[in-house]
Amino acid sequence: MTTYKQMLSTITEDAKLTMELVEKDMPKPESDEIVVRVDATPINPSDHGVMFGAADVTASETKDGKLIAPIPEQAMGRMKGRLGQALPVGNEGAGEVVAAGDSDYAQSLIGKTVAVMGGGMYTQYRCVKAAMALPLNPGNTAKQGASSFVNPLTALSMVETMRMEGHSALVHTAAASNLGQMLNRICKADGVDVVNIVRRDEQAKLLKDMGAKYVVNSSTDSFMTDLTDAVDETGATLAFDATGGGTLASDILTAMEMAAARTPGTYSIYGSTHHKQVYLYGSLDMSVTTLTRGYGMAWGVGGWLLPNFLAKAGKEAGARLRKRVADELTTTFASHYNHEISLEEALKPETAKAYNAKKTGEKYLILPQK
Amino acid sequence: MTTYKQMLSTITEDAKLTMELVEKDMPKPESDEIVVRVDATPINPSDHGVMFGAADVTASETKDGKLIAPIPEQAMGRMKGRLGQALPVGNEGAGEVVAAGDSDYAQSLIGKTVAVMGGGMYTQYRCVKAAMALPLNPGNTAKQGASSFVNPLTALSMVETMRMEGHSALVHTAAASNLGQMLNRICKADGVDVVNIVRRDEQAKLLKDMGAKYVVNSSTDSFMTDLTDAVDETGATLAFDATGGGTLASDILTAMEMAAARTPGTYSIYGSTHHKQVYLYGSLDMSVTTLTRGYGMAWGVGGWLLPNFLAKAGKEAGARLRKRVADELTTTFASHYNHEISLEEALKPETAKAYNAKKTGEKYLILPQK
Repeated sequence: MTTYKQMLSTITEDAKLTMELVEKDMPKPESDEIVVRVDATPINPSDHGVMFGAADVTASETKDGKLIAPIPEQAMGRMKGRLGQALPVGNEGAGEVVAAGDSDYAQSLIGKTVAVMGGGMYTQYRCVKAAMALPLNPGNTAKQGASSFVNPLTALSMVETMRMEGHSALVHTAAASNLGQMLNRICKADGVDVVNIVRRDEQAKLLKDMGAKYVVNSSTDSFMTDLTDAVDETGATLAFDATGGGTLASDILTAMEMAAARTPGTYSIYGSTHHKQVYLYGSLDMSVTTLTRGYGMAWGVGGWLLPNFLAKAGKEAGARLRKRVADELTTTFASHYNHEISLEEALKPETAKAYNAKKTGEKYLILPQK
Repeated sequence: MTTYKQMLSTITEDAKLTMELVEKDMPKPESDEIVVRVDATPINPSDHGVMFGAADVTASETKDGKLIAPIPEQAMGRMKGRLGQALPVGNEGAGEVVAAGDSDYAQSLIGKTVAVMGGGMYTQYRCVKAAMALPLNPGNTAKQGASSFVNPLTALSMVETMRMEGHSALVHTAAASNLGQMLNRICKADGVDVVNIVRRDEQAKLLKDMGAKYVVNSSTDSFMTDLTDAVDETGATLAFDATGGGTLASDILTAMEMAAARTPGTYSIYGSTHHKQVYLYGSLDMSVTTLTRGYGMAWGVGGWLLPNFLAKAGKEAGARLRKRVADELTTTFASHYNHEISLEEALKPETAKAYNAKKTGEKYLILPQK
């Protein structure tokens, strides 16, 4: 094997996205590097940004095996920073170490299955620093380890954020996702209450069946009452919202304020004084975020990004979280996929439209060796 | 003098606001208390919440000297906490100490002019703890000291917040207000850059004339470019927004992100990593806040309230800020009023509509002894 295929995404001046597979020469690892044969790599919502940028995927088409999609004119300004650059895509994945530099540690990994969060993982081979790899525990497969970073570390970091910022329970939206299920398992083990917000009855059932105590359905008429009750019971003053757009973040703050107002005390025009926070960590709903501000003055809404959090939390915390992922990979951090596709299939318009819809329960795993 | 007049605000079950003057018996101060004859007390935007709640002031009318206004049905839920309670109004004011309890400190204040932030200041006399009063420096009048707390401490606390949260310059909206002018004088003295956002040319001129370096007009076509340039030059990553509603907070974050993107570096789909923050400290625009989220993931928007900040900053900081206010009362912290009205006039519908419009440059001072 002297060459391999890698997926690249390019946006050009003519408002066009091109996603394609290119042929690359097999890399020669430096002393402290390893070459991983990527056997499995998931498509996470957090991958879509680099893959598609502001492209209208619903209008995508195929040409010579490439995926082509238009960029709406008004969004081109935001794309300026990446114009003309062929960007590698795919945040994380797992596979076998097939070559290594001459350092002892790199050599010790040969033949082992490792997980990597290195970017550019939608590829058949990836050369990375040996120190970046997370060796899976014996017996665990690449498919099991493909999602060892983004979802597990995000779920763990939500609970870390809760503790660091002085909250004692949390609210999570799009809660039936792989990430949401992990969060419930973590919270159960750690004795932390989590209020799960879902949009469909079967999602509520899935979470209830796995033992979730607080599940509310945002599609029901009683949503705000149910949410306020759950927030009141748990004392949650922190929320992580995967949807980003619309009124959900504002609704959560409203429920927190209504719950706070149930505590007897004198009236205050400025609302409750305990800080109420919603972090938007995703953008499943691409529309604008609307805040009614009917929740006093002690509140915040903001972006939340795993790498930014890990940088703030420090190396020790990062190492502790990674170890927990490796130790509980097939239990707490088990991921479920219902589509396994090749690199070529990932470029088909019909497939791209399907995974770009980001439906909870529809999870795609790329098998680059397929 | 055995009785005095005090303004009270009541919202009742029938969706009606009543603001009226009631006759009270002159208070007898406890040992550590003083009685202040309130000579001057300002109407700040932050007073309107307790005064009017959710009432539609534009539909107000007068009845037996009382101000009556309807509450829109859909807003009554938010008023639940205050229904039936006659609330004293007016956050701050100043006047002469006319009686005192027997403690040495209280007695030492007799005959002195003091400023007080005690709530219920729209009154002819107010009994407070002597320790709460800020004695004005000799020669300073009650009119000069009427606004010693809300605006001066808010302006100072904005700069404190900037330092505490690791920013080095700031953006301020409704910047030609009394508060905005104070902020410019503080920043000039402290060597801090402030980007002033105004809505009218004469406001820009006013600030330019007092030496403000960065003034941008949000009514002009070049607003976003001008703002981005100013944010880029100053490096401001913190903003205080008095308007609250609409898109201004989001526009400021967009400008901060565009300024950050000018720094050469590799493209990142997740945007700039330095945290960008907008605090909403007012609600001049009562409409919803709309966030486009086109500024990466390292951003926050939230409420900001002076008492919450002072509680977090601690006693020492509070005392330091108060001392600066007393020392620079007629320079840095000079306030300007263009309407002096009596308590009775404050209850007239035409007057209430005028000050409730919260126009920059239209500032009302109540003289309760008038």
